[in-house]
Amino acid sequence: MTIKPLQDRVVVKMAEAEETTQSGIILTGSAKEKPEFAEVIEVGPGTSDVKMEVKKGDKVLISKYSGTNVKLDGEEYIIVRMEDILAIVK
Amino acid sequence: MTIKPLQDRVVVKMAEAEETTQSGIILTGSAKEKPEFAEVIEVGPGTSDVKMEVKKGDKVLISKYSGTNVKLDGEEYIIVRMEDILAIVK
Amino acid sequence: MTIKPLQDRVVVKMAEAEETTQSGIILTGSAKEKPEFAEVIEVGPGTSDVKMEVKKGDKVLISKYSGTNVKLDGEEYIIVRMEDILAIVK
Amino acid sequence: MTIKPLQDRVVVKMAEAEETTQSGIILTGSAKEKPEFAEVIEVGPGTSDVKMEVKKGDKVLISKYSGTNVKLDGEEYIIVRMEDILAIVK
Amino acid sequence: MTIKPLQDRVVVKMAEAEETTQSGIILTGSAKEKPEFAEVIEVGPGTSDVKMEVKKGDKVLISKYSGTNVKLDGEEYIIVRMEDILAIVK
Amino acid sequence: MTIKPLQDRVVVKMAEAEETTQSGIILTGSAKEKPEFAEVIEVGPGTSDVKMEVKKGDKVLISKYSGTNVKLDGEEYIIVRMEDILAIVK
Amino acid sequence: MTIKPLQDRVVVKMAEAEETTQSGIILTGSAKEKPEFAEVIEVGPGTSDVKMEVKKGDKVLISKYSGTNVKLDGEEYIIVRMEDILAIVK
Repeated sequence: MTIKPLQDRVVVKMAEAEETTQSGIILTGSAKEKPEFAEVIEVGPGTSDVKMEVKKGDKVLISKYSGTNVKLDGEEYIIVRMEDILAIVK
Repeated sequence: MTIKPLQDRVVVKMAEAEETTQSGIILTGSAKEKPEFAEVIEVGPGTSDVKMEVKKGDKVLISKYSGTNVKLDGEEYIIVRMEDILAIVK
Repeated sequence: MTIKPLQDRVVVKMAEAEETTQSGIILTGSAKEKPEFAEVIEVGPGTSDVKMEVKKGDKVLISKYSGTNVKLDGEEYIIVRMEDILAIVK
Repeated sequence: MTIKPLQDRVVVKMAEAEETTQSGIILTGSAKEKPEFAEVIEVGPGTSDVKMEVKKGDKVLISKYSGTNVKLDGEEYIIVRMEDILAIVK
Repeated sequence: MTIKPLQDRVVVKMAEAEETTQSGIILTGSAKEKPEFAEVIEVGPGTSDVKMEVKKGDKVLISKYSGTNVKLDGEEYIIVRMEDILAIVK
Repeated sequence: MTIKPLQDRVVVKMAEAEETTQSGIILTGSAKEKPEFAEVIEVGPGTSDVKMEVKKGDKVLISKYSGTNVKLDGEEYIIVRMEDILAIVK
Repeated sequence: MTIKPLQDRVVVKMAEAEETTQSGIILTGSAKEKPEFAEVIEVGPGTSDVKMEVKKGDKVLISKYSGTNVKLDGEEYIIVRMEDILAIVK
């Protein structure tokens, strides 16, 4: 069973806290909006205004509190918009 | 008797809770906006800005609290905009 | 005496409650915005942004609380925008 | 002395209550926004976005509370935008 | 010393109350937004969106409370946008 | 050391009060938004939407409270947008 | 490990207070929004609306309180939008 996101949406899976530490990304404790570390699972087709700049498997930083949670076959995912993805981390 | 949605609107029918469980979609209990599982009944023509990316029979996730309820020949439907449909689930 | 709506406006006449029941449309009692059943009387020319998708005589669902009431030759009409018409019911 | 409205503006003169009754237009007493009956006096050139759909002498319905009052040579007029004119009444 | 307004701005000089009366323009005392009578002093170049429809010497009606006051060589002027000029009075 | 403003930004230096008086510009004490007198120091490249209409050395009127203060090599400057510059004074 | 910013985003590293003083930039204490001094680390591809006007290594002034903090391999960075960068300082 799969999810195919529409328009400029992207399905991501949040990275585990442990995984985050191993990869060297540690989110700072400042008052500013903190991003979250995630992996791209599925990418929508984009729109005439928004070009998709991520692909399956990319590790990304997404804006906290963005998107919609959904549980599929026991796994939790978040559906975000391209706009909510700040950067790809390699 | 049929409903023909206009512009970028889509008529959907909410999936039963049982059906939702069978298909493996379980909505999480987090504080974030939760989507709802539905089936596409009729699709509008789209607009110059919005391309329709769903077709009759698609199983979709829609934003909760979106759209307008209507009862037609004893069945309840919701008229949503393309914008409110997050993803197709297969 | 006639009304010729301008831009993307449409003149509609609300359907009687009896007529609504006969046609099988029953609006649900949920907390969501409920549509109303109406008949299209006159259609404006549209604009460069909005294409008119209804014609005289169409039975339509319109967003509740949309439009402007006017009484013409003893009959009550509502002037709505194309945007306010959700669907054509056949 | 004349007023030449600019952009998509239109100068109208409110119709007398008597005249309104004769023409058969009676505005309803509902809670919705009520239009007013007026005659078009002068029409602006329009803009790249807005096409003028009325001409001098047209009897029109305008949104209540729209526009700006001005008294010219002892006569009162209202300067409205094309947007504020709902329909032409013939 | 001169002021050259930028973009779609226009420099106007408010007309004296006496002059206003002579020209036959008397602003009404209604609750609606009242315009003010002014003379165009300098006209900006316009923008890709806004075409300038007034020229030096035009007598115009401007929206009250619009624009920015400035005193130049002892004279008071108002810098308004093309948008704030309702009509030319001849 | 120099500042190169980006997009449609302009670096200006506020004129001294004395200089303002000499040039004949005196800002009025009305309740309306008062502009400030400044000299253009550096001009950004503009954007596809905004054409730059000022050049180095121009004396300009800017909207009060617009822009961002910065001190460079002991001098205070304000970085404003083209939008915030009302007029060139010659 | 690297961060590749998306759309019109830019990864910057805040300059040390000491470095700021050496470069001659001192932010003023006024009530207006104060910028911050930073170095550009990575630049996104831009969008159809926004052209990127900075490159790696540029010293820039960014709007205070803009962007999102992230710590990568022990270093703190801020991800801002092109819009948030006021000027390049040379």
